[in-house]
Amino acid sequence: MKVMIDLCVVPLGVGVSVSEYVTACQRIFQEAGLSHQMHAYGTNVEGGWDEVFAAVKRCHEVLHEMGAPRITSSMRIGTRTDRDQSMADKVSSVEEKLSGEA
Amino acid sequence: MKVMIDLCVVPLGVGVSVSEYVTACQRIFQEAGLSHQMHAYGTNVEGGWDEVFAAVKRCHEVLHEMGAPRITSSMRIGTRTDRDQSMADKVSSVEEKLSGEA
Amino acid sequence: MKVMIDLCVVPLGVGVSVSEYVTACQRIFQEAGLSHQMHAYGTNVEGGWDEVFAAVKRCHEVLHEMGAPRITSSMRIGTRTDRDQSMADKVSSVEEKLSGEA
Amino acid sequence: MKVMIDLCVVPLGVGVSVSEYVTACQRIFQEAGLSHQMHAYGTNVEGGWDEVFAAVKRCHEVLHEMGAPRITSSMRIGTRTDRDQSMADKVSSVEEKLSGEA
Repeated sequence: MKVMIDLCVVPLGVGVSVSEYVTACQRIFQEAGLSHQMHAYGTNVEGGWDEVFAAVKRCHEVLHEMGAPRITSSMRIGTRTDRDQSMADKVSSVEEKLSGEA
Repeated sequence: MKVMIDLCVVPLGVGVSVSEYVTACQRIFQEAGLSHQMHAYGTNVEGGWDEVFAAVKRCHEVLHEMGAPRITSSMRIGTRTDRDQSMADKVSSVEEKLSGEA
Repeated sequence: MKVMIDLCVVPLGVGVSVSEYVTACQRIFQEAGLSHQMHAYGTNVEGGWDEVFAAVKRCHEVLHEMGAPRITSSMRIGTRTDRDQSMADKVSSVEEKLSGEA
Repeated sequence: MKVMIDLCVVPLGVGVSVSEYVTACQRIFQEAGLSHQMHAYGTNVEGGWDEVFAAVKRCHEVLHEMGAPRITSSMRIGTRTDRDQSMADKVSSVEEKLSGEA
């Protein structure tokens, strides 16, 4: 089962600057060979269910190892059986409709 | 690693009534032996990381088997290394503060 | 437009214990006269759109006043035009299905 | 109070293809003059609290007018008093750290 997620990991108890922790998660997705795209409030990741969720678990493990005593993440999880749709497909489908209106 | 999640599973392409699908997920948490508590906009589940996420995967699998062609879930994921805190602890900690104000 | 939300407010930069801040939000919902129900990973609130979102804004304002330099909340927002359904209706609809299986 | 949100609007009861509805929301953010950036699983929007939340309400209203009987959205809400940080700042802060590792 293929999955697309959007993940925002928030370490607590380490102050207000969290970019170091976000960077660690990007590295985890990269090393896992997962297609991923960061945005200003989270990261899109897609791949096989088990590979994607192993990376999410790794994010929590690594951030605890980096010193975060508490982590709260928010996540969207999308699966579909009707068709295969990549992250790029989803965005371009809307962009075409927007440009078609001009 | 212990985890507490809050999960809201939304099947698409099956109309507006989704209680049948929510019921199927409750049954999955129950059969997995996981501590869980439904509320009006999701379900709290706690347990070992792997057991909890196996149940989340099973929810997506079962809902697709029930006929949902597309599923989008939203989820919060909480882990902490500083202390052990159950779902009941979290709620009573706030309730004590609220009643102490009266 | 009536709305039901599920809100989890997370103050950053104030350490790992956030129950004092969650308590402040409960008080805001109560003083606003909004129907609300706390659970272990958030709070369900229902009412008119403008009243509910004024309370959400007040949560962010009050937590900043209490000293939180940064806040990240996660929220689900549900509206429907087909029928009127309360928080209690949603839960009992699933509970009936679960007990009917026994 | 300035706010940055990440919003994913999900119409129920209108089938599995929702790009038409996502497009309508993009148009709402654009007409509101709000800085916004779509990604594969939501949209980042930033601006004044009242302007941003007026646009979110408008999304729900317009999607109901387009025929969606039920809508469930998931949203992250970020505010901070310690500094002013744009969507672009957040991404570049992580990208610099990532490239500095090479």
